[in-house]
Amino acid sequence: MRFAKGHGTENDFVILPDPDGALDLTPARVAALCDRRAGIGGDGVLRVVRTKALGEPLPEGAATAESCEWFMDYRNADGSVAEMCGNGVRVFARYLIDSGHLAEHAFGVGTRAGARRVTVEDDGDITVDMGPVTALGEGSAVLARDVVHGRRISVGNPHLACRVDRPVAEIDLTAQPELDPAAFPDGANVEVFHEVGPDVLEMRVYERGAGETRSCGTGIVAAAAAATPEERGATWRVRVPGGECTVILDAEGARLRGPAVIVAEGEVRSALLSG
Amino acid sequence: MRFAKGHGTENDFVILPDPDGALDLTPARVAALCDRRAGIGGDGVLRVVRTKALGEPLPEGAATAESCEWFMDYRNADGSVAEMCGNGVRVFARYLIDSGHLAEHAFGVGTRAGARRVTVEDDGDITVDMGPVTALGEGSAVLARDVVHGRRISVGNPHLACRVDRPVAEIDLTAQPELDPAAFPDGANVEVFHEVGPDVLEMRVYERGAGETRSCGTGIVAAAAAATPEERGATWRVRVPGGECTVILDAEGARLRGPAVIVAEGEVRSALLSG
Repeated sequence: MRFAKGHGTENDFVILPDPDGALDLTPARVAALCDRRAGIGGDGVLRVVRTKALGEPLPEGAATAESCEWFMDYRNADGSVAEMCGNGVRVFARYLIDSGHLAEHAFGVGTRAGARRVTVEDDGDITVDMGPVTALGEGSAVLARDVVHGRRISVGNPHLACRVDRPVAEIDLTAQPELDPAAFPDGANVEVFHEVGPDVLEMRVYERGAGETRSCGTGIVAAAAAATPEERGATWRVRVPGGECTVILDAEGARLRGPAVIVAEGEVRSALLSG
Repeated sequence: MRFAKGHGTENDFVILPDPDGALDLTPARVAALCDRRAGIGGDGVLRVVRTKALGEPLPEGAATAESCEWFMDYRNADGSVAEMCGNGVRVFARYLIDSGHLAEHAFGVGTRAGARRVTVEDDGDITVDMGPVTALGEGSAVLARDVVHGRRISVGNPHLACRVDRPVAEIDLTAQPELDPAAFPDGANVEVFHEVGPDVLEMRVYERGAGETRSCGTGIVAAAAAATPEERGATWRVRVPGGECTVILDAEGARLRGPAVIVAEGEVRSALLSG
């Protein structure tokens, strides 16, 4: 089995080229590949498959084979199926270009959350259409040593994005945030952000089920939206522990621009996949 | 740059084949390779180089090119040079066999701690001569919720191996153990072990500078030695979170037998090595 490894702002992925949908990618194999010590290691797997070869009914809302030649079959590290990943789709696009599967610099990528428009910028950054951002009102969370207040925002998944009045490095994110279950029936990722300059935010994120991470694409969008006065467009640079992205907010929704890197590629030994 | 990734009881390594000593392996490059999110990820790098091509004066005590054709140039994940690694030398030996560099099933490997005799067993396990084990007296450590007492043991590096009277899963190893600096001027790895059957130990380890790990080759040997009445030979199976090894103690010292797996191989992209 061929693989590549890549990351976007240190959200990292095992990439599996499977143009014809021939791989038998069981949850156990995904978990074995993503194991950081006994496997290759990653936050998830990106299976690179032609939309027409997906091998399962297209999920509701997914792109069609006509609109998107390639489909990002994203799996979480535990083997479960996921809809979308803002950092993952940049890495997916970088792989399509680098491997020669696509020559154009603007194309659609199919995901279980719908088609995502991707643009490869002149400086190598990749911009991804993140779809609509929905403000859902106020909210708060109890952290290890602080209570933070902010905005409940949906970017396809639920967030609580909270402005803080000091450097985000000083916030203790070691404990699972306590959220009001009435306001967050499915839980939420919690972002803390601090405005450090004109149109520049610093942000950290605690992800549902994962703890603090180096970066979260939808969380970066949520923080930018929470930092923006209602009914306004805006462009924010958002610094996270794993790097920096730019968020463009306008009437059509959000676009996320940032780096994506392929660091290695090769062959997986069959012993790793025997489970 | 070619690479492989492998592990021994989940102590994992980036393996760099460099038979002719052509690689320029700076500390920054080692750290970039071992970064678990922005790189390939590993506890360290094993550079596979012919002893005669090491490209630096052989360290005192290292094997000669006559006694060992291959030298394990081991680097810690932070880029610093290390002497030996009991799990690493099994993975190193597995790579030499798998890649066709060696055909025999018993050979010497050069390390900065001296020549290590390696035997590939019929079942695929690999046995490594770990050299002398030296008992240095009693000692104790203050853990997060327990005070543990045991034996100070040198396996080339310093250990405190402590028998406990309950399952090791119940011991809190989240905090750095407090040690008497007079007894441990260089610090020590701290092992807790519990005898769970005839000649079978369960063990967990807190490694200096790294925290709790899935396995530690010298720590496994230290626990076996601490479990053995003085002046006696013994054979112990030792279960750690990352798997199981066997320790054979006799008049010549210790041998460590256990699994070693190569999980993937391929090519590193130059972007990762530009730092």
